Amino acid sequence: MRIFGIDPGSERTGYGCVESAGSRQRIVLSGAISSPAGASFPEKLLRIHQRLAAILAECAPDCVAIESLFHAVNVRSALKLGHARGVAMLAAVEAGMPVVEYSPAEIKRAVVGYGRAEKHQVQQMVKLILGLPAIPSPHDAADALAVAICHLNSMAPAHAAPALQRPAGKAAASWRQYRPART
Amino acid sequence: MRIFGIDPGSERTGYGCVESAGSRQRIVLSGAISSPAGASFPEKLLRIHQRLAAILAECAPDCVAIESLFHAVNVRSALKLGHARGVAMLAAVEAGMPVVEYSPAEIKRAVVGYGRAEKHQVQQMVKLILGLPAIPSPHDAADALAVAICHLNSMAPAHAAPALQRPAGKAAASWRQYRPART
Repeated sequence: MRIFGIDPGSERTGYGCVESAGSRQRIVLSGAISSPAGASFPEKLLRIHQRLAAILAECAPDCVAIESLFHAVNVRSALKLGHARGVAMLAAVEAGMPVVEYSPAEIKRAVVGYGRAEKHQVQQMVKLILGLPAIPSPHDAADALAVAICHLNSMAPAHAAPALQRPAGKAAASWRQYRPART
Repeated sequence: MRIFGIDPGSERTGYGCVESAGSRQRIVLSGAISSPAGASFPEKLLRIHQRLAAILAECAPDCVAIESLFHAVNVRSALKLGHARGVAMLAAVEAGMPVVEYSPAEIKRAVVGYGRAEKHQVQQMVKLILGLPAIPSPHDAADALAVAICHLNSMAPAHAAPALQRPAGKAAASWRQYRPART
């Protein structure tokens, strides 16, 4: 089972792919898509979409997991984030992949075991779970890996990292799943 | 000069193409993209993107004009709108078309001559300017045509509808233009 996590943003979109191998989880790839300096907003969206489409084709995950919208953000930032998130979701659905969403609290609960954990605690757990020598860089990539781990940990026990307490029923049940029709 | 206007929305995205022919403006086409009942959110985005890409290819406008974000909306609606707007912008930039944005007040000022005009006044003016027998339906299509007319009226006098007072320098100067690099 291979899950592709996305942490969308108009300036930098993190991505990371995690595979469950027996009782372990291992990293497939991770990184971030940055906008070229001076790019217009539509050009930034084009770059996010084009790069994600190419990486998804290369990675061929079973599912795409995206951090759900951060509700405390102000309207202007939310609108910008919505654009980036829209083209990221589009890349996934164009590739015929189901899309699932998790709130920041669900991700923290599934990765650290505590819904109000600090960002750096989540990143440390990503490093530990995946057996990495350091926290993946940039942080957007680590955040995207956390979303992927969250989905694996919310699924059947076979895919969950054994070092972790599996998330409470709530996280497993509350994610919204979009399964595109494969036509 | 042919301008394609878009009024994006996750449930219904209006579009309309207007051409300046001498001192007149005429409608090329208009309509709205609705989501099929029961479609998931990513499927709705896919439909908006696919339909817009097809209509833009058919219409071959010189420029795409989109209503800029409505700032008074709440965060949740703004985020949803951002997704639809993101994939609409993507369709335009993928087709190599420059994208311009106008605020609702700029559109009202350019079409009706008054920045606080009512929605139905704008729609009535769209009908008059384009010499249509009725207000285009659905209303999202009329709103998209208004954005296209706004851009034509903000350009060189040759393209502006003669019945209208051309918008003040502000509307002409304040639109943000994104001209994608044609590679």
